[in-house]
Amino acid sequence: MRAAVWYGAGDVRVEDVPEAPPGPGEVTIDVAYCGICGSDLHEYADGPHAIPVGEPHPESGVAAPLVLGHEFCGTVRAAGAGVTGLAPGDRVAVEPHYRCGSCPRCRAGEYNICRHFGFAGLMGHGGLAERATVPAYMLHRLPDAVSLEQAAVFEPAAVALHAVRRAGIRPGESVAVLGLGPIGLLVTRLAARCGAGRIVAADRSPARRELALRMGAAATGADLAEVTEGEGVDVAFEAAGSPDTLRACLAATRRGGRVMLLGLTGTITLDAFALVNNEQTIMTSVGYRDAYPELTRMVAEEGVDLAGIVTSTIPLDHVVRDGFDALLRGEEQVKVLVRPTGRRP
Amino acid sequence: MRAAVWYGAGDVRVEDVPEAPPGPGEVTIDVAYCGICGSDLHEYADGPHAIPVGEPHPESGVAAPLVLGHEFCGTVRAAGAGVTGLAPGDRVAVEPHYRCGSCPRCRAGEYNICRHFGFAGLMGHGGLAERATVPAYMLHRLPDAVSLEQAAVFEPAAVALHAVRRAGIRPGESVAVLGLGPIGLLVTRLAARCGAGRIVAADRSPARRELALRMGAAATGADLAEVTEGEGVDVAFEAAGSPDTLRACLAATRRGGRVMLLGLTGTITLDAFALVNNEQTIMTSVGYRDAYPELTRMVAEEGVDLAGIVTSTIPLDHVVRDGFDALLRGEEQVKVLVRPTGRRP
Repeated sequence: MRAAVWYGAGDVRVEDVPEAPPGPGEVTIDVAYCGICGSDLHEYADGPHAIPVGEPHPESGVAAPLVLGHEFCGTVRAAGAGVTGLAPGDRVAVEPHYRCGSCPRCRAGEYNICRHFGFAGLMGHGGLAERATVPAYMLHRLPDAVSLEQAAVFEPAAVALHAVRRAGIRPGESVAVLGLGPIGLLVTRLAARCGAGRIVAADRSPARRELALRMGAAATGADLAEVTEGEGVDVAFEAAGSPDTLRACLAATRRGGRVMLLGLTGTITLDAFALVNNEQTIMTSVGYRDAYPELTRMVAEEGVDLAGIVTSTIPLDHVVRDGFDALLRGEEQVKVLVRPTGRRP
Repeated sequence: MRAAVWYGAGDVRVEDVPEAPPGPGEVTIDVAYCGICGSDLHEYADGPHAIPVGEPHPESGVAAPLVLGHEFCGTVRAAGAGVTGLAPGDRVAVEPHYRCGSCPRCRAGEYNICRHFGFAGLMGHGGLAERATVPAYMLHRLPDAVSLEQAAVFEPAAVALHAVRRAGIRPGESVAVLGLGPIGLLVTRLAARCGAGRIVAADRSPARRELALRMGAAATGADLAEVTEGEGVDVAFEAAGSPDTLRACLAATRRGGRVMLLGLTGTITLDAFALVNNEQTIMTSVGYRDAYPELTRMVAEEGVDLAGIVTSTIPLDHVVRDGFDALLRGEEQVKVLVRPTGRRP
């Protein structure tokens, strides 16, 4: 089958790779869509960051070269021994978190912070391929009311839902979102769905700001200071990813409020005196847990549109040129989906 | 009357100051005890930090020179016009937070983060004096079952209770306390009272570690790494006050856990990637609100001993030599109380 394989920084090859039938507890799916995530871009641009090289990941048993792509969905093709509840033809969303099942966090149900934290498509083979074979526990069967186009963005939507849940937004609380990539836009959509009051959002891109208004933002600006009113918001989501934007979030947040970090990296420097005197909380969110069933319900029963962030769909053979390279050049896109097979499932 | 008056760094004078009868809404009390706080030491050593110089504080109307001391209690001597519910002879604890009553946080009941944040004894005249005149809203009448010795530490105990409440400790959660000054020790005591499971505590002082064991700690060490088990604690309280100790708290805390900052100042530098990947939360706590009634209840009904942190009681005339200078020299003390009048109330 054809697959996009990461060999090293700047070296992702779409090539033929051998296939094996699913092992015990595994399922092979025909991939319908696989989204390109910022993490994939980082691995392509200057990786490895998360991709295991040399030493295989303890849960996947895989090291590079590996098949990229962790935002995928499709149709069950074959189930391995011992798999129950899934049959060929079932439409499924993939929740690509590995979990060991035995560490203290897994035992507490917090498998997103499993000590063997990892993702299919980064620490094991993923979904930028015609087919993917993954542990059965990663699969969520979709009801008829949920299209594969919606399921294709469940993975970033789960990241957003987990952050919105952790922020503990109370009905009517005001929200700011800084950074309107896929995650920031989905946070906007899900915060609106989860009872937030006034939502303001900021990004340098006018097109993304326009999309945020459709996702539930009441006002948008190039930076948060333009749109923050009065004493500041109750909760700010930092989805832009720089130390400067963290400071902008703290400045836009009221005394006693919360700032939620979604994907910040690097070193942050903060004025502790101001942080304590303002009694602000810095929260963080990584991955997700127990999110896919709620996303399924929202889409099926409430008609929530998550796929509104998709700006283009491209074939697998063009993923490097029209996907990675185009996004790294800064082409105006939000979410690019790859459709590995010609036929529309 | 005699009072300890702050004139500048290194210049606190115990001297006779004029008195006026309480104005409308004010109450004059005979001070029974006034504790010395780390903030007082900072103002004495190299202030002003919080003390207004030149421009009077908006709530107190006072600028330096001013009477220090914000941890005090006593007996009502006289009430000004319009004061109800307090009569001469009533024993009272002073909650020295100013509040404007009209800013968004005051209207939300979060008066500890009032925009005019301030304390009698730092931003207005305080209790290191024979008598103190304060707004009536600062006073809490004490039932017979609460001694003035216990009430003398209500102020630092309120700081600890507010932090313990904000940390949201669930029954059985494990706790670490780093820094066993008055606040760290009272956090230990109140975390034990509020359902915490195993509590570990760290400080360089063996005497303070010994006191922590009496306050409810299960194990103590010179640093947290000595006493932290397994994956780390659910909640760590940073009551030592340096960027290094914040990092020690993060290291002692499990994935998904919380670190509570109580009094950190200066600039903190953190690894954001680790913070997010460990899904840790940095919480802060400043002052307190609605804490005195619960402290009164705990002492009166449960016999909780807060005054166990008191290591000496000195007369007002010796406050500079036996109080400020001794503490700054590093004399082994936890909480020093000043008794402004010879008679024991």
